Order: sequence, then C-alpha cells, then structure tokens
Amino acid sequence: MLSKSQIGFIKSLHQKKFRKENGIFIIEGIKSIIEFVPSAYQIHSIYYLAEYKSLLPNLPSNIKLFEVNNAELDKISTLQAPQGILALVHIPKSVPVNDKVLKNTFSILLDGVQDPGNLGTIIRTADWFGFKNVICSLNTVEVYNPKTIQATMGSLCRVNIFYQDVSELLEKVNIPIFGALLEGKSSYEMEWGNEGILILGNEGQGITTEVKKFIQFPVTIPRVGLAESLNVAISAGILCSDISRNFKK
Amino acid sequence: MLSKSQIGFIKSLHQKKFRKENGIFIIEGIKSIIEFVPSAYQIHSIYYLAEYKSLLPNLPSNIKLFEVNNAELDKISTLQAPQGILALVHIPKSVPVNDKVLKNTFSILLDGVQDPGNLGTIIRTADWFGFKNVICSLNTVEVYNPKTIQATMGSLCRVNIFYQDVSELLEKVNIPIFGALLEGKSSYEMEWGNEGILILGNEGQGITTEVKKFIQFPVTIPRVGLAESLNVAISAGILCSDISRNFKK
Repeated sequence: MLSKSQIGFIKSLHQKKFRKENGIFIIEGIKSIIEFVPSAYQIHSIYYLAEYKSLLPNLPSNIKLFEVNNAELDKISTLQAPQGILALVHIPKSVPVNDKVLKNTFSILLDGVQDPGNLGTIIRTADWFGFKNVICSLNTVEVYNPKTIQATMGSLCRVNIFYQDVSELLEKVNIPIFGALLEGKSSYEMEWGNEGILILGNEGQGITTEVKKFIQFPVTIPRVGLAESLNVAISAGILCSDISRNFKK
Repeated sequence: MLSKSQIGFIKSLHQKKFRKENGIFIIEGIKSIIEFVPSAYQIHSIYYLAEYKSLLPNLPSNIKLFEVNNAELDKISTLQAPQGILALVHIPKSVPVNDKVLKNTFSILLDGVQDPGNLGTIIRTADWFGFKNVICSLNTVEVYNPKTIQATMGSLCRVNIFYQDVSELLEKVNIPIFGALLEGKSSYEMEWGNEGILILGNEGQGITTEVKKFIQFPVTIPRVGLAESLNVAISAGILCSDISRNFKK
C-alpha cells in the first residue's frame, strides 16, 4: 500500500521538470529491471504486483521494495498498459565525453533530435551494432523521457549517453567527422575506416549550420524513389549497419 | 463555420470503426494535401484556416472546401499541434495484389506489425528506395490510423498498400521469398537478385510459424553488441538499403 505522497512523487516523475529536480527516472517491465540491476545505474526503489516478486533478481539491500495493487500501479505507471513492475532509477551524474572513449570506435552524435521514440530507437540500434556512445546536443530530447526509455528496450544501460555543447566537442576532437546529409558521398561507397563520429540532425531541419561546418565527410543514403527524406532513426540504422559491415576486426 | 454534425462526423473518423464504416480517413498539413491531390486517392473535402487558402493547389470541382477557425480546427484535428489544414480522403477499394506487380521488383510483406508509427515509417522507407508494394497481413495495424498517416510523411500516395491473407498469397507466388529472422544468412552476404518479397514480423513475436514456413531465404542483420533485437522499421530500413545497393539496373 502506497501513501498518497509516494504516488504523487512517482507521478511527478512523469514530467521532465520533476525528473530533473529529483534526479530520478522511471523504468518499467521485468526485463528492463533485470538489465538495469547489474548495470552502472543505481536503482532507488521497485514497485511490483505480488506475482512479480519471484521474478526479481538478487538485489542490493539498499533498494526499497513496495508491493502494489493494480489500482496503484495504474496511477504510477507511465504506460497505458502497465507491465506489472516498475522501478525508480537515479539519473547518473552528467560528464562530458572524453577523447579517449571516442578512439577506435564509432560514436553517434545527435544534433537536436526531438522525438523521444527516435532517440530511444537510435540507442537500441547503437547497442545492436556495438556502438558505445551517443552524444546529444543540449537541445536534443531528454533521454529519461518515458517514451525514450521504452523505445530503448533496455539498451540504455549498455550505451553511454552524453549531453553537451557539441560544437565545443567537435572543435577539439581529432577524429573523422561524418554527417548524414541529403547531398554527400553514397554511404555504399564511403570508406568509413575504424573510428569516427556520425552526426544526425533534427527531424525537420536536419543538421544545424553551426554543426554542419565540422563535417569532413558528408554521407548520403542513395535514394531511388520519391520520398523527400528518411526518418532519422532509419538513417541512423542504415548508416550504423554500413559502418559495421566495413569495420575491420 | 462548421455545423455540430460536421464536427461530430470528422471527430468520429479519429476512430477506426468510423473510418471503416464511412470509407474515409484524414490527412493533415499542406504538404500532404499537395501530394494527395494529383494522386490516385480521391479527396472528399478540405478544412483550412483562412491563411492557407492561397497555398491550395488547383482542385477538382467536386472537392468541398470549408474555411474554419482555430477552435474548429482544434476539434477536428487528430494532432496536438494542428497544421492549419486537413482533408478527408476516400479509402480506396481494397484489391488483392496480383502476381504481375510483384515481378522485377521487391515488395515488403508485414506479418502482424502493430505499431502505427512503425507501419508509417516502413511505407516512407519503401518510398525512399522505390519499392512500390507493401503487403499487410489481416492482423497488421490499419494504414489509415492518423499516426500511421503522419509517419508516412506523404509517401502513402506513392506506395500501394494491400491487406490480405498472406499465407494464401505466399502459397501461390512464384518469386523468391526472404524473411527477416534472428538466425539466417547475413544480409551483407545475401544474393538478393532483382525480385522478391521481404517478410518482416510483429514487434514482439516476429514472423508467425504459419508464415515462416514459406521463407526460402532467411536473412539476418549481423549483431555486434548486446541488444536482443532491432526495431522492425529499422530492420526494414537496413534490409531495403541492402536490397537497393545490390539491385542491378
């Protein structure tokens, strides 16, 4: 049985303002929780229907556990169809990316992606292809948005997410910088090499002029038909796949 | 000024039941309308804020035009941020795909895709790569769902959509059948050839056992990292791109 103030607190975390204020976000579903527990993230508390108790993994003793009923879960869940269990997780301290983690790998840099589902799907895709870093411009949608978390399908705990001034970063890095544009070298012919940053832009506006000037290798996905553009997560998927197939082990 | 019954009618079309009953769906935004007007779709009526009138293309005289105010548009729009103009469009008569349109091209077949955004994004992606046909199993989400329409970004009027019993179709077609599975030949090494059907399955369950048995060429996108799966629209994007780069002109 949860108190009114507990319910109010968890519901407040549905909003960005209160996630930021409290440094806590929500994950849902037993699969997510099993993946987050052994990760670098710190779980604050877990709320579960009785039948989910036996599914819980071994937990550090500092995690608070609360059995809830369906009515309570409906109130605190961010989902239309709650998945029986949810957890509050501490937002990790934000650190800027350091040059070392960018070496000998590919990282994705998002310049103003706005749709939470797109961000989540890009993180999941990065995880599939073994890309460890997603760097977000300061005006990119918040990664702790419930729709983003849901779309990552647990991959959030395996991909490092950075929010920072991306121009400042691009100014100083010594690594090839690729950018997805409508005009550029065909991604099928690009020599990707073994390290780099791949920049993808906002859904409507693409990459900003400010960031565009850092692109050394403009790359495009060859168009055959008549669609004006590809969805940004689809572009990310195709380009990550192209990078992955060319990566020399 | 719209009558109460007009507003009620358009609002009813936000629901699948009434779209089906009336054979009408909604498209929004001036770009979509400009793309649909010259297409094979028949526009029923257009509802616009005064400032959008001058942006309208030449219209057949049988299309009814209604100037509306912001309050009215808010009521009839399916969007949180209405785009100033919307149109009602007749749902075309459903015909099953014929063998001829499947020849010398690639078609996408969706076996139970449930998310409207995924379906719309797949149609937009098919259009980008010049694929003309998307065949949907009868339990695939409805293409006239406003979220699907929105995600197609106008590509719906350039891609043929079919809903039918897909087992029946696969039983009789004489064309290579590829299926996206977690186990299969690497998509990077697949010999795609110049025609085929590419099957993609449901978000959670993948391709059904019934449909799986028709797959002649199981294909998989090589995984490097630890994500359990890729989003179905991302898989579609990567595989369409791989087919497109191998297509011999």
